[in-house]
Amino acid sequence: MKKILNAPEAYTDDMLKGIYGAHADQVKCTGDDLRCYCRAQKTDRKVAIITGGGTGHLPLFLGYVGDGLLDGCAVGSVFQSPSSEQIYKVSREVEAGAGILYLYGNYTGDIMNFDMAAEMCEMDDIETRSIVGADDVNSSADQERRRGVAGIFFMYKCAGAKAAEMGTLDEVLEAAQKAKDNTRTVGFALTPCIIPEVGHSNFTLGENEMAMGMGIHGEPGIWNGPVKTADELAKESLDTLLADMPVAEGEEICVLINGLGATSIEELYILSGSVRSCLDEKKIKVYRTFVGEYATSMEMAGASVSICKVDEEMKKWIDRPVKTPFYVQA
Amino acid sequence: MKKILNAPEAYTDDMLKGIYGAHADQVKCTGDDLRCYCRAQKTDRKVAIITGGGTGHLPLFLGYVGDGLLDGCAVGSVFQSPSSEQIYKVSREVEAGAGILYLYGNYTGDIMNFDMAAEMCEMDDIETRSIVGADDVNSSADQERRRGVAGIFFMYKCAGAKAAEMGTLDEVLEAAQKAKDNTRTVGFALTPCIIPEVGHSNFTLGENEMAMGMGIHGEPGIWNGPVKTADELAKESLDTLLADMPVAEGEEICVLINGLGATSIEELYILSGSVRSCLDEKKIKVYRTFVGEYATSMEMAGASVSICKVDEEMKKWIDRPVKTPFYVQA
Repeated sequence: MKKILNAPEAYTDDMLKGIYGAHADQVKCTGDDLRCYCRAQKTDRKVAIITGGGTGHLPLFLGYVGDGLLDGCAVGSVFQSPSSEQIYKVSREVEAGAGILYLYGNYTGDIMNFDMAAEMCEMDDIETRSIVGADDVNSSADQERRRGVAGIFFMYKCAGAKAAEMGTLDEVLEAAQKAKDNTRTVGFALTPCIIPEVGHSNFTLGENEMAMGMGIHGEPGIWNGPVKTADELAKESLDTLLADMPVAEGEEICVLINGLGATSIEELYILSGSVRSCLDEKKIKVYRTFVGEYATSMEMAGASVSICKVDEEMKKWIDRPVKTPFYVQA
Repeated sequence: MKKILNAPEAYTDDMLKGIYGAHADQVKCTGDDLRCYCRAQKTDRKVAIITGGGTGHLPLFLGYVGDGLLDGCAVGSVFQSPSSEQIYKVSREVEAGAGILYLYGNYTGDIMNFDMAAEMCEMDDIETRSIVGADDVNSSADQERRRGVAGIFFMYKCAGAKAAEMGTLDEVLEAAQKAKDNTRTVGFALTPCIIPEVGHSNFTLGENEMAMGMGIHGEPGIWNGPVKTADELAKESLDTLLADMPVAEGEEICVLINGLGATSIEELYILSGSVRSCLDEKKIKVYRTFVGEYATSMEMAGASVSICKVDEEMKKWIDRPVKTPFYVQA
């Protein structure tokens, strides 16, 4: 394992100390728990949006806490859920009188702990709603069972915009739901990654082998096989995405080409070009393309392709300027 | 070699097609040469700033072309200089009546071709000035012979701001020079990277071996040895930086923690925290910290630490909002 760190067991907390040290003007922790990550400023009467999940996916999850996006994040250890207590503490800190939306990925441990935190909030008369990202098409035929991956970005963006416009809790939930309904993702890995405290990867991929549909924690995909070309990967990804969520000629989408960690930005743009060619052929109009690292698996090589079907309302939400230490849109 | 691409020989052009496709509102190429990369908008009477260099370092170099930063970039093949003809074509396209600053890295091929382009511009009565980034302390004891690496970001930022404020050509050059004089970088690699058309790395690093001072094209560093901890790397880097450019107690610096490509954002923040602790001990005040990928070597693992000593004028330049497809500051 080659990583820049001090001790594997200090990975998450050392990372958090680094983040708070670098961005004290924008974020802070609640009390003395580093894992309770909050926006430094609070907007009175705004619906608070809270996310959470394991470490190892930066900028997901905490990187989206900031102006125009999220208000807090409960941070778990690498690939582990945060505790319900931590989610509750973040909730108490960022709640601003208009209720809380819990918006996170569809993973069992997270659901259990967010639900428990919601009950704790209820006892304090703080209203909550919950919605999970579940955009990873290849993870299950059943939409309810799909894992949440990079496509949650569009949910953050739409819900964050609606909350910044001082929408009600139900309106913010609706915005997140609308983004969820219109977003799908396909991802593939070229190499595994290593959990620092484990010290070796949980699986291997051969010299020229890749895994289509692999999850961001290394969950098995739908096939392993020789590495395909960017054009082939774009075509296969889009075929899967569009079979699951048809987009008619002339309809508009946003595209998100996400790097899983070790894949170079150059390759992401090669893939982006291939995806664009396929979409042009199908006469599907691209409103906006995002390319970069939005949801990673530490040093895993690979990428994901997300599409989000947009109407005028969603375009406005997606274009709204936001600013976090990790993500700025002007 | 595991990369997402179509054909190794199409790497640079496929990447460029992807970039133009995704960001047609912000950038364009001149004529039909993809390698002549220009800002889509032109500001009359503004000094034009042009950079250039080989592919494989995104967001360096072309990623800094955009509002408030650079106006054009001549793009070479992977780790190769662009031609003087391409630099000249970019120059003709972006020149806006106030002259051109060539601002690029201190590499022999680039210098030769930029100098040749400057002569071609001179024949057209277009005034040019040139300055090279040469911030990599470990690459030579002689400042004039040092390679340019991630610290060029501060030169772009200061010169870009001065140009956006409609400074004269000499004032923009001075701003770049001021940033150069106050910036130093130390970098280290944990793994090599592979040039697509070569197909294998030009050197190897052992299971637990790293290279201190390695260049962004894999130029040999000052020592190879076992991977050190984040705290040790921070201390050694700062000792080297501060020995070369002393910073007194109470003086202010900006810090740039740059990932070389495959290193996770988590690790960069662990390193950032270690650097911050060292600086706090030395009572050196940090004005602003930048963490992320600013100058990469494709899928090389590793990082660099840059410091830039700042006064009030430079802080204003560095804080000035900018917007490119790759880098936004609001």
